[in-house]
Amino acid sequence: MAYFDAASAEPLNTAARSAFLSAMEEGWADPARQYHDGRRARMLLDAARETVATVLGARPDEVVFTGSGTQAAQLGLLGTLAGRRRVGAHAVVSAVEHSSVLHAAELHEAGGGEITRTVVDRTGRVDLKALEAALRDDTAAVAVQSANHEVGTLQPVAEAAELCAARGIPLVVDAAQSVGRVAVPEGWSVLAASAHKWGGPAGVGVLVVRKGTRYVSPLPYDEREARRVPGFVNVPAIVSAAVALGAMATTSDDENRRLSLLVDKIRERVPRTVPDTEVVGDPVARLPHLVTFSCLYVDGEALLTALDRAGFAVSSGSSCTSSTLTPSHVLEAMGVLSQGNVRVSLPQGTPEAEVDRFLAVLPGIVADLRAVTSAGGAATVPAPDPAAVAGQAADEAVPADDVPALVLDTLGRRCPIPVIELARHIGDVPRDAVVAVLSDDEAARLDVPAWCDMTGNEYVGERPDEAGGMAYLVRRS
Amino acid sequence: MAYFDAASAEPLNTAARSAFLSAMEEGWADPARQYHDGRRARMLLDAARETVATVLGARPDEVVFTGSGTQAAQLGLLGTLAGRRRVGAHAVVSAVEHSSVLHAAELHEAGGGEITRTVVDRTGRVDLKALEAALRDDTAAVAVQSANHEVGTLQPVAEAAELCAARGIPLVVDAAQSVGRVAVPEGWSVLAASAHKWGGPAGVGVLVVRKGTRYVSPLPYDEREARRVPGFVNVPAIVSAAVALGAMATTSDDENRRLSLLVDKIRERVPRTVPDTEVVGDPVARLPHLVTFSCLYVDGEALLTALDRAGFAVSSGSSCTSSTLTPSHVLEAMGVLSQGNVRVSLPQGTPEAEVDRFLAVLPGIVADLRAVTSAGGAATVPAPDPAAVAGQAADEAVPADDVPALVLDTLGRRCPIPVIELARHIGDVPRDAVVAVLSDDEAARLDVPAWCDMTGNEYVGERPDEAGGMAYLVRRS
Repeated sequence: MAYFDAASAEPLNTAARSAFLSAMEEGWADPARQYHDGRRARMLLDAARETVATVLGARPDEVVFTGSGTQAAQLGLLGTLAGRRRVGAHAVVSAVEHSSVLHAAELHEAGGGEITRTVVDRTGRVDLKALEAALRDDTAAVAVQSANHEVGTLQPVAEAAELCAARGIPLVVDAAQSVGRVAVPEGWSVLAASAHKWGGPAGVGVLVVRKGTRYVSPLPYDEREARRVPGFVNVPAIVSAAVALGAMATTSDDENRRLSLLVDKIRERVPRTVPDTEVVGDPVARLPHLVTFSCLYVDGEALLTALDRAGFAVSSGSSCTSSTLTPSHVLEAMGVLSQGNVRVSLPQGTPEAEVDRFLAVLPGIVADLRAVTSAGGAATVPAPDPAAVAGQAADEAVPADDVPALVLDTLGRRCPIPVIELARHIGDVPRDAVVAVLSDDEAARLDVPAWCDMTGNEYVGERPDEAGGMAYLVRRS
Repeated sequence: MAYFDAASAEPLNTAARSAFLSAMEEGWADPARQYHDGRRARMLLDAARETVATVLGARPDEVVFTGSGTQAAQLGLLGTLAGRRRVGAHAVVSAVEHSSVLHAAELHEAGGGEITRTVVDRTGRVDLKALEAALRDDTAAVAVQSANHEVGTLQPVAEAAELCAARGIPLVVDAAQSVGRVAVPEGWSVLAASAHKWGGPAGVGVLVVRKGTRYVSPLPYDEREARRVPGFVNVPAIVSAAVALGAMATTSDDENRRLSLLVDKIRERVPRTVPDTEVVGDPVARLPHLVTFSCLYVDGEALLTALDRAGFAVSSGSSCTSSTLTPSHVLEAMGVLSQGNVRVSLPQGTPEAEVDRFLAVLPGIVADLRAVTSAGGAATVPAPDPAAVAGQAADEAVPADDVPALVLDTLGRRCPIPVIELARHIGDVPRDAVVAVLSDDEAARLDVPAWCDMTGNEYVGERPDEAGGMAYLVRRS
């Protein structure tokens, strides 16, 4: 099995595993107790905090350990917002933050706060102009990740920090994907990270609050972890996490260079060997170990299943792989293709041969899946009465000359069917004529325009359809 | 080293340790992923949930895993209160709940909610009449622990549940101290527990919400763990926790009987061999492995240090062992002596010889400490002008004939000095005369009346003193 999902969880580092076992023997007692076993646990905890602080460029007393990276990121945002309540209840978050940050923002909204979600460019990079424009006198906090977890694009943290500093607004940085791999740029006020992303065990997050940053815990009071994280402190896991971070921080330069070359190989090879494929994210300013691409006309879930059968563990942002049947919010914010989406994230030590095998089997797997899905077909319905459509179009501000020559009814059918039907039938209409794809699949909103981009056709727009879904209008070029 | 602090953390069970190691190999991946390693982690997680549910008498889909027992207890109370917001914002908690529950209640108060803390008797048992009287039409939840964590007294959970059920109020039970050792009585709506209290690893709590109980998560949204606990699920630790619980549940009857006899031995022997000592908590309706006693005229921190030097790890509810220099809220609610307080909680497998050695060294240790502290002395100040005191006493509703014949100024001196001075000088006044102990130590409020109980003198009352502290009045009998 080739495990290519390090962005979900990096396998436990060997030294970290040994440290975990030792600390289970020596650090299991309550570090708040004054007896021998408690003092020993406390010493291990202090040493681990010192190691983590050093790697993160922080003071030990700025670092607390949480129960997960998600908890760290959520506390980071909510605690900073609570600490600046008097300034206001407005926060700015990038649209491509990890769901843990976005969900924390939603909770803030539900409690009466206000959130501005700022746009990104097609590589997933935060738009600094939009960020600057979103800052207000009542902005209590800004959240920008260090690097995107789905497409690997590095974010302009230093520049965002300058914009925030100019207005005295704290910048909260979710650095879960980059800590241990890429140095976090200066300027943040609050930083969150997750041990199992850097080869530590599950169950350990890190929250760093710079001295001078106002922070009010949203959780019940507890004396432990600087009053920021209630509950018994999990010393063995924290010791292991610190060892893993130390190990990755000292070895990562060479290893990252090697992984980055493997990623370059994937970025170069996949579009050449798999037709109708788009590699997304910034090709240069990116995480060393992560690459994401999307394949037209392919069901993402089927692709993951086929890759799993071939011995590859990857993840996907395609709608069919999510429980809500919506495409990844990151791909959506970038405006890129979401169907047949594959994220490859290479753990430390990935052999080049595994990547080569992946590149060797992928084209056949995609071709097989395309052969299966293209065997189906949508009901092609006659074009509606032009007058009626024109009337509706006027309401929806779609020009009257966009009356479709062909309507493809794919209602009730999921990604990638709407796009497959569009590709199959676009040739049925004359050049400059419009095809309408009726769909109630959320992915179509992203994938029909993306398909137009990739194939050189013109995306006209969308409008609600009487039958319940949306009509996505495409002009044949 | 004899570790007698199982109530803080039971050492990791051997089978649970092996299971942890296996699950680190087989259950490290994200259980939400569809590839092989993810599915395997999912299966391990499902099996662990099933084991825990079976032991707790719950359905697997009622059980979620949290990052700690504290998190489980806090979510249990706050989520139930949020789920019943329409009924009201009033909650009833016993005064002897674990601090995690009390701190959650304080957060609810800070958010505009109302909390009634109900009294307990001298054994620490929840007073059901007081509990019933506290229930109101707008009571959204009641929290009663299964057993007290400091003195071991079992709480009348079944009876409390009946009172709640009669009014349709959910009962939240923090069962952290009893799960695996004593069956939890029926009738609860929400249950919280902590794996490292039953021989599992740190980092795993359990929250059980009975079907039909309204629960609204106070945390940001997350798909995992029934939307109740955000963050990556720590499968290896959860698997280990389930194995530990299964192991304890199957072996605990015999072992508990054995530990209970050892506790009986301590309860019987300590008051006989250590003068002026009070064993607290219910002698019969109690946890099998836990016993707490207090020693007059002894500094709790010094006692812990001396026991640690002699090779015994115990904890204490004495004020001098807390960072806030206040006595344990449990001892305070019970109205029992807090000085020289020692909690002994025996882990599974404690050899009887260790308990015997403890009983052998304790009398000498206490005697030595008493010899040291009695070498000091308070300033004995002349009795104040009776007229002035009488005037002040009238204001404070202390009868005028309680004008002290002797005032002991112990301002600025900590527990156990105020009580030591009282004991030393009570013989200086005639029978029926009053001694005033001036003290600004919080523990004196608890320990002066407790000393009167133990020595047969009469506690008259307290009144604020001009010098800044309190005057505690004692009539010599």
